[in-house]
Formats: sequence, C-alpha cells, structure tokens
Amino acid sequence: MAVYTDVSFEELEVFLTAYDLGEPHVFKGIAEGVSNSNYYLQTEKGAYILTLYEMRVEAADLPFYLGLMEHLAGAGIRCPTPVRARNGEVTGLLNGRHAAILTFLDGVSLRRPTAEHCQQAGLALAGLHKAGQSFTGTRKNALGLVSWRKLADDCAAGADSVADGMRALIDEELAALEAAWPAALPQGIIHADLFPDNVLFVNDRVSGIIDFYFACNDALAYDLAVTLNAWCFEPDGAFNVTKARALTAGYQQKLALSSDEKAALPLLCRGAAIRFLLTRLYDWINRNPAALVRPKDPREFARRLRFHRTIKNAEAYGL
Amino acid sequence: MAVYTDVSFEELEVFLTAYDLGEPHVFKGIAEGVSNSNYYLQTEKGAYILTLYEMRVEAADLPFYLGLMEHLAGAGIRCPTPVRARNGEVTGLLNGRHAAILTFLDGVSLRRPTAEHCQQAGLALAGLHKAGQSFTGTRKNALGLVSWRKLADDCAAGADSVADGMRALIDEELAALEAAWPAALPQGIIHADLFPDNVLFVNDRVSGIIDFYFACNDALAYDLAVTLNAWCFEPDGAFNVTKARALTAGYQQKLALSSDEKAALPLLCRGAAIRFLLTRLYDWINRNPAALVRPKDPREFARRLRFHRTIKNAEAYGL
Repeated sequence: MAVYTDVSFEELEVFLTAYDLGEPHVFKGIAEGVSNSNYYLQTEKGAYILTLYEMRVEAADLPFYLGLMEHLAGAGIRCPTPVRARNGEVTGLLNGRHAAILTFLDGVSLRRPTAEHCQQAGLALAGLHKAGQSFTGTRKNALGLVSWRKLADDCAAGADSVADGMRALIDEELAALEAAWPAALPQGIIHADLFPDNVLFVNDRVSGIIDFYFACNDALAYDLAVTLNAWCFEPDGAFNVTKARALTAGYQQKLALSSDEKAALPLLCRGAAIRFLLTRLYDWINRNPAALVRPKDPREFARRLRFHRTIKNAEAYGL
Repeated sequence: MAVYTDVSFEELEVFLTAYDLGEPHVFKGIAEGVSNSNYYLQTEKGAYILTLYEMRVEAADLPFYLGLMEHLAGAGIRCPTPVRARNGEVTGLLNGRHAAILTFLDGVSLRRPTAEHCQQAGLALAGLHKAGQSFTGTRKNALGLVSWRKLADDCAAGADSVADGMRALIDEELAALEAAWPAALPQGIIHADLFPDNVLFVNDRVSGIIDFYFACNDALAYDLAVTLNAWCFEPDGAFNVTKARALTAGYQQKLALSSDEKAALPLLCRGAAIRFLLTRLYDWINRNPAALVRPKDPREFARRLRFHRTIKNAEAYGL
C-alpha cells in the first residue's frame, strides 16, 4: 500500500481547473491500493478520491471500470462515482498517469468480519449483480480459467520453493478444473475481488463497495465463490460454515441461486482459490525486495483450495 | 512517507473505547511523516489524526510535544490539539506503540510557496514564538550546536562519497560555528522544522502548523534561520531574496528582531543549513535500500550553507 506517483498541491490545482469542484482544502496521499496511487481530496464541494492509474491497470479498461461505477451508482449501489470534468471526460492526465476523481465514501473495512457482516456482504454482492444486469459495457475476465495455465507455467519452476508439493497441487487441480469447469451458468458483471478490504461499513451496515478494478463479465456464482473464499476462513485457516451460511443467505435474500449454480459451487470455490493462489504465488516468486508493497502469502489459498477439494456439495457452504 | 505500524479497524475500535469520540466512520492510513505512522480518522464528533509514535520519537518527550500543542491551541495557534481520553491521558498504547489522537486541520502544504506565502509563514512563526512564551514545559534541542560534532564524526568516513569536499566543508564550518555561536540571544519555544510541508494553507492563508516533533527551547532567531533555509531557496538552488524579505517582514509584523538577532542571522543561517546537511547526510550514508522512505539529498543543504558563508550581514536576507 503506497503512493507511487507524487502529486504536489500545485499540480493538483492545475488538474482541478478542468473540474467544477471549487477550492481544494485537504489533499493527502493515502496508503491504500496496491495497483494505484490514491489521494484523499476535500474541496468546497465535498470529499473525493483522486486515483492515478499505475502500470497494473490497463488504460483501455478505464472506460469500462469508470462507466460501471457510474452505472452502479445511478442504480443506487453505494460505490465511488466518477466526477466528470467540464468537458465531459471521466479521466485526465496527471504526472504521466491516467487519473480520475471519484466520490469518497464514508466507512471502514473490517479485518475480522462477523457472520452478520458476511450476511451484509452477501446482500451487497447480490445487489451489485442485479444492478449490473442493465450495464452494457463488457470486459473479459483477464484472471479467469483460461489465464490460469499460463500463470501456473510462469510459477512452475519456483512453486515448490514456496511450499513442498505446490507445483503438483496446482497441476492436478488445473487439469481437474479445465475438465469440469461449468460453462452454462448465469453470467453478468462480477466484482471479482470482494475481499473485506473492499466493503465499507458504518454502524455495521454496508456503506460502500470499492475497488472495481478487477470487475468483468463472468459467472455470477463464481463471484459468490470468490467472496466465500475471502470472508469465510478464519486466521487459523479454518472454514467458518456459520459465516458461509450467512453470506449465501444474504446473497439469496436478493438473488436466488439456481440448482446448477448450487451444484457448481464447490468447483467454483476451488477455481476462486486457485485464482488467488496463482496470482499471489506469482507476486511472491517475482517479488522485489525494494518494493513498497509486501506480497501476500500464497499458502493461505493453497490451504483453502485443499479444503474445497474435500467438499462434495453446496450444503457444506450452508446452502 | 509510510505507515509503519498496521492498525486494523477492530484494534482502533478497542482503542477508541477510552475516548468520547463516538462511532468511527472513516479510518485510513496516510502517507505522511517519516518518523511516525499516521491515520486519518473521522468519527461522529469530527476529523482527527491518529499518530503512532515510532522509534525516532522519544517516549519521554511526548508530554512536552503534546503539552505544547495543547498550550498553543489554547493560545489561539492553529495546530493539532491532542484529544484527552476519559481518564485524562493524552497518550495510550496501541499495537506496542505510544499513540495519540489529535484534531485534524484542513489545509494543504505547498511545494512552491510564493513570497506572499513566505510572509504568511513568517507571521505564523512569530505567532508561535509569542504563544510559546507562556509555556512552562522545556526540552533541549537534541539537534542543536552541541550535537553536530558527533553527527559529523559519524558521517566523516562516508561524507566525500556523497560529494567531493563534503568532509572538509563540514569540519571547517563546525570549527567556525563552535567558535562564534551566539549564546545570549532571546530564547523560547521553537518549532525547529518549519518547512513548507508543515504549514497548511486554505485560500492562501495559514490554516495550521503541524509536526511539532522537533520543537524545543532554543534561540528564537535560529528558528527564523531554519525557516529562511526552508522557504527561500528555489529548486535550482538560488536564494530568493524577495521571499526572504517577505518572510522576515511577516515575522517582524508580530515580533521585532533585536539588533543582536539581526547581526547573528547569517551565522544562524549557516547553523541551520549544517543541521539539515548533517541529518540528511547521516540518513543518506546509513540508508536502507529496502526502507519505505527515500532519504533526501544532503547536497542541497551544502549549497545553501555555501551561500550563507558569503553573507556578511542580515541585509542580504532582506532585513
């Protein structure tokens, strides 16, 4: 978590001349996000986040991400809303980076969500899926099933240095997933990264969903599988079925899962676990000791994957 | 600029039970300060900074720093004010660090202050000196004249690797300063680090002075010399006498300099330059390539020192 691109107040002032936001009163770099530089900005008109998009975000995808947030906000979802410049654009250039100003949302992210928070998160995810149905933009899931083989190949040589048996686990799992991956599940806009960091709460109610920079079109139930992986394991690695029950129940308050989706859930959870296992493994093997960001431990998701491999049906997830 | 000590929302919640600040609504690590970890905190009651004091700040000095800010705020100076816990304490322990909650000040720090901003900064410095006169706490200047020799010795072996002639410049200068340093100038509470980062502006007016963690008792005119060094040189190294004139004029709007202070100013400016030269040089030589903070270039202050050595009297500073 870091600010990669430095912006002086004077550079901000020039950038703001394109907007109708009035005089800036507060401007502080915030230690948030691993892919972008973020500044907290307060002007006469309100509170905002100024985001500078660094290398990891494809400029070509920005209209999708920002258009999606604008659409969702218009549909009543609490998420950052891009502020348009007077010329109608949602992005501008600032210190060599594409940059956008988004509304700032009050709320805090939880490190140890309770079952009730999980239920709220499930409800919010379903709300997002429903609101996404009327969005016309599309983006392929760049970290979906078809991407995993290449990531695995890139990690193959280093995998066992991270944990014994890691390479075999991945090979075996990928073969199984490629053979059995369900293709006909209901599709739509998914968040694809709904970890507790990306859900804000005020007084134990969801006050916002943030970080849409992995959003894409994919199976809705896969997004639920990502969220189960992200919210329902304890720090000691144990699966918390009470939280899973709460999360899926919250989801189904708004959007009922089909029998196909339920049947696929164990496999989707394995897929979601290997997706985060692979990206973390890649970042771990290729980490730069001088980098500002410490890579996350990939082994956590190897344990989650092993858990999901023991599951025979969706009942284990409280369904 | 970094957050060194991680605080989860749940850890914050426990810490806040000792305070009457109501429910927290926003909690974000901010990329500010090189010695401490800082979080932006918004609760029902207002906006605050939560500071965790890291190694560089002596715990024994915290009552001085926090007491000073409380005193100055009571005297009408816009500076962060410590919030007392219900038990009356201004610090508590959080994740193994001493921690304090201070009021948050609106305002932005300038990278390229104009002469008018310099005049404002001078005025604010004099206001701080005046308000400090009734403060009873005391703290020696740990980075004053007597500390420079040891710093120079610690840097001696590495100095010339940073710039040719650096070691000789320092040795020669220290001998001169030790021989001629004025001992009888008016003393008081000084900020001792009033760089543009530490002065906040809203609509071109000073809205706050921050970062009192070098404050101490020393010659008031030495603080003006620090501030001249910090505000009146251009990025290309040139001294801007218009800014110096504005700064000293601003100062004297509130507090007239004595003839002794004026006469000492060139020497005090040399002292202030070598103080920052030495600490930067030390940090540069002892830098850790994996650290989150990039050290500042010490050579900038070698240039400033060389400039001050050419000055014969305070008129050169616009006095």
